[in-house]
Amino acid sequence: MPPTKTSCALGLDYGTNTVRALVVKLQDGREIAVAEYPYAHGDQGVIVDPDHPDLARQHPQDYLDGTVEVVNEVLRLAAEREPSFRASQIVGLGVDTTGSTPLPIDRNGEPLASHEAYRDHPAAQAWLWKDHTSVAEAHELTEAAAELKPHLLESCGDSYSSEWFWAKLLRCARTAPEIIRETYSWIEIADWIPAVLTGNQSQPVRGLCSAGHKSWFDEEQGGYPDFDFLNRIDPHLARIRQTLPDQAQAIDQAAGRLTDHWATRLGLNPGIPIAVGALDAHLGAVGSGIAEGTLVKILGTSTCDIVVSSLAQSLPSIPGLCGVARHSVLPGYFGLEAGQSAVGDIFHWWVQCLRRGGSSWDHDALTTAAQRLAPGESGLLALDWNNGNRSVLADSRLSGLLLGQSLHTRPEEIYRALIEATAFGARMILERIEEYGVPVTEIVTCGGLAEKNPLLMQIYADVTGRTMKVSRSSQTCALGAAIAGAVNGKVFSDVPAAQKTLTGTKERQYRPNQTAQSIYDMLYELYRRLHDAFGIPLAHPELNTAMKELLMIRDEVRRTVAD
Amino acid sequence: MPPTKTSCALGLDYGTNTVRALVVKLQDGREIAVAEYPYAHGDQGVIVDPDHPDLARQHPQDYLDGTVEVVNEVLRLAAEREPSFRASQIVGLGVDTTGSTPLPIDRNGEPLASHEAYRDHPAAQAWLWKDHTSVAEAHELTEAAAELKPHLLESCGDSYSSEWFWAKLLRCARTAPEIIRETYSWIEIADWIPAVLTGNQSQPVRGLCSAGHKSWFDEEQGGYPDFDFLNRIDPHLARIRQTLPDQAQAIDQAAGRLTDHWATRLGLNPGIPIAVGALDAHLGAVGSGIAEGTLVKILGTSTCDIVVSSLAQSLPSIPGLCGVARHSVLPGYFGLEAGQSAVGDIFHWWVQCLRRGGSSWDHDALTTAAQRLAPGESGLLALDWNNGNRSVLADSRLSGLLLGQSLHTRPEEIYRALIEATAFGARMILERIEEYGVPVTEIVTCGGLAEKNPLLMQIYADVTGRTMKVSRSSQTCALGAAIAGAVNGKVFSDVPAAQKTLTGTKERQYRPNQTAQSIYDMLYELYRRLHDAFGIPLAHPELNTAMKELLMIRDEVRRTVAD
Repeated sequence: MPPTKTSCALGLDYGTNTVRALVVKLQDGREIAVAEYPYAHGDQGVIVDPDHPDLARQHPQDYLDGTVEVVNEVLRLAAEREPSFRASQIVGLGVDTTGSTPLPIDRNGEPLASHEAYRDHPAAQAWLWKDHTSVAEAHELTEAAAELKPHLLESCGDSYSSEWFWAKLLRCARTAPEIIRETYSWIEIADWIPAVLTGNQSQPVRGLCSAGHKSWFDEEQGGYPDFDFLNRIDPHLARIRQTLPDQAQAIDQAAGRLTDHWATRLGLNPGIPIAVGALDAHLGAVGSGIAEGTLVKILGTSTCDIVVSSLAQSLPSIPGLCGVARHSVLPGYFGLEAGQSAVGDIFHWWVQCLRRGGSSWDHDALTTAAQRLAPGESGLLALDWNNGNRSVLADSRLSGLLLGQSLHTRPEEIYRALIEATAFGARMILERIEEYGVPVTEIVTCGGLAEKNPLLMQIYADVTGRTMKVSRSSQTCALGAAIAGAVNGKVFSDVPAAQKTLTGTKERQYRPNQTAQSIYDMLYELYRRLHDAFGIPLAHPELNTAMKELLMIRDEVRRTVAD
Repeated sequence: MPPTKTSCALGLDYGTNTVRALVVKLQDGREIAVAEYPYAHGDQGVIVDPDHPDLARQHPQDYLDGTVEVVNEVLRLAAEREPSFRASQIVGLGVDTTGSTPLPIDRNGEPLASHEAYRDHPAAQAWLWKDHTSVAEAHELTEAAAELKPHLLESCGDSYSSEWFWAKLLRCARTAPEIIRETYSWIEIADWIPAVLTGNQSQPVRGLCSAGHKSWFDEEQGGYPDFDFLNRIDPHLARIRQTLPDQAQAIDQAAGRLTDHWATRLGLNPGIPIAVGALDAHLGAVGSGIAEGTLVKILGTSTCDIVVSSLAQSLPSIPGLCGVARHSVLPGYFGLEAGQSAVGDIFHWWVQCLRRGGSSWDHDALTTAAQRLAPGESGLLALDWNNGNRSVLADSRLSGLLLGQSLHTRPEEIYRALIEATAFGARMILERIEEYGVPVTEIVTCGGLAEKNPLLMQIYADVTGRTMKVSRSSQTCALGAAIAGAVNGKVFSDVPAAQKTLTGTKERQYRPNQTAQSIYDMLYELYRRLHDAFGIPLAHPELNTAMKELLMIRDEVRRTVAD
């Protein structure tokens, strides 16, 4: 069924601090209205604990309250902007969320946090993606997999992350037994929200995206990891695994249909399809028009790089990617994910470092000053590892490096060197993907940095030698979710057909400048030498452990100082 | 002749921005008065050229005017403080200056700058030690010596510096032929000032200190480099070499006696002996009580490390020292000099970098914050090469490195890491000296950082595992000059006898803390790995050229940008 003149879809994008809603017109992709709702609990929606800086949780009630607020608001705004708009024109709804953000639930699919006894228990909340309390548990899972199920590691970049599903469950089992005992199952919020809206909380559909990238789900290997393997690690994991379905679904499938109850609360037609949920970056890739040959880069505090590769072709194991999973981005394709663990965060660190003494530097002032510099003019070179290296080294115990300071080095020179360092890191990922036979013929970027930082975008173009396009929508994740809703609403035959109408890139593109490119080629060659010397185990026996030794000394000293 | 109750000596210390005078009582070493006079010409006494940032000159008239002002002032102050003081109690006068700071003179020993035609010609001024216009010429001299006179390089740390005598003369010959043609000879200001005061301008005595350390003078090899060698490089050098004497003298010899004319101008007794002049750091070592086994560290914007070794023992060639010369510090001993090309300058760079955005950080605030940190707590490690490395790598084309930054690294952590880096560099020099059989049983520090930075001093003690003593006098250079004056005044039989009465260390000493030391041992081991990987040619073929490649790219880009 082709889109009618009036049919629309709704995308809901549950982020770290807020939830956004987008109404998009399916005939031409026009985005009629966007609304945003900040979560009520915690610090900007994140429940933190000063004694445990790695802890980051969210209250599940925020998702539900946010849904009601943001949907009603976006419908009101849409009607205001376009008087002919009616909520009944919405033919489908899709959901994307952060992840892995698993939530402990009871047999009815109700969050443990909704039980009076556990309302304020941190372990009963949703464990937000950036909760890093589970480092030891992630290591334990990696070790167990290496011994018993090495194929699991191939799909997740050789090490299971502390950000992911099983690590968080294991952490809960080890540190909050009262919660894990009361838990019937755990569920990604990407699956839980559609389950609530469709009344399927007791038998929720699980999405292939989070299952494949965060929970070691692989349909070719029998779905989730088997009972015996998990039981060797912890009986609770094995017990919970038994509550998970054998199948998981892609975004072109429905999690169910909107219940009357929720239709009333949201002001939507009852019975419209709710798409299977997926992770924000992956639906962001869909909203940016991902297809075979297109690399989508989501540029923010950290970055996520996504490509797809047809299931019809066999895919080699690509070292250093964070994950590979079937149907996880586009149905019918492998979804491949890589990333840089800090990008905007590194620039933000430098600004904060300068501002601690009360300076007036901000990103704008540093950008203006850095823009005046030519590539190579500062004599500086940096590594972009202040928060470790996700791809291609998959090593969180790496740290920053700045080289080439003189007695005249200025703040804006360092700022630019840090931008360049992240560009070199981006080029490493790009080259790694292509080296293993996955072609990249187009790069589409989205996210805050892509929209607001022309200097960074030009540097990325100059460093990679590729044109950087910018996704047309500034709500690519919500747009991706809306596309999933539209496909489920049968307006389009499949996701690529919907993308054809609904996605695109802005007119302004960043094309490589040849002079800059040739200088960056030289600097990149130097970056690679540092990268390999400090990052690759055994490459330079005297240097590749240096950063880790410094961290060990630091951690030991901090323990002693704290005692 | 033992000191009488009233005998005094006068030391004159000609620095970069000011000249200082010190009157010291010879019976007990009491420093009666100090006066200081800022040079009138240029920017704080330094004639600069915005178009040539490496250029640094001084007007010779400033030395003469300064002498008159500062001597009259110090005598006035001494009489004020001690009513029984009389200028006639001064039995001898010594001079130290910066160096190599050579001055072009005519046949009468008058500066070319005193000729009307050249009064404002930069090449006719004194070429201040930190004038770095002669990099290419220094390289040419090094190459020529390597080919024709390799023994010359052994005495100067394997490369002749752009700061030194012959390099500056060659630069003048190449770029200001009108000046070199008019020049009869060139003279270090350390020799010229005593020559003026003693009326020996047409046949000045040359000091062994600057001759040995800056002009390749070696009495065992026939004095200054021979005519043919210099002639191969440039005929002007050979011609000027012919105007230099075959002998040079140590500080226990007199350059002559104070003329009536100058006695009147200065208010001193005519005929008192003026000691042979020497370089400030070397007389600073004398004023700090240098003896065999004592390492004197002069800690300022850069550092100078001086030890002596008896001429009776043969001395191996020690790679990485800036210079070795006979009698250059203490008569009868080899004087050995090493140094770090930036110490205080590196901390100053960091403060300036933070302050560019208007922050309130200063050295005090950063020191207070850095003091709260434990060794190793920041996870940072730096190299102290922002201005190149003088000892032990003798490579000005090295640059800074900072390792271990996270997203939480704070300015004071970097500040402390930079202090620690200079301490590691100091330990490298200490170990190099001892490795080659020159024992160091005591370390005495002097200079601004030694007096004013207890945090730095404690870190130096902890990093080296040695007690850091601080010279009692805060005018060690002028005190060393006064000692030379006193020895020439026959109050003491020799320099060590004078030092016994006149030098000493402060009560407060910095002793190593064992816990800190053991952590710094680990960090030093890491520092050495970085040091060797980035600093030693061919050690790590992928990294040891990295800093130089960055500088080459930088310089090429800057040339292109300037065009």
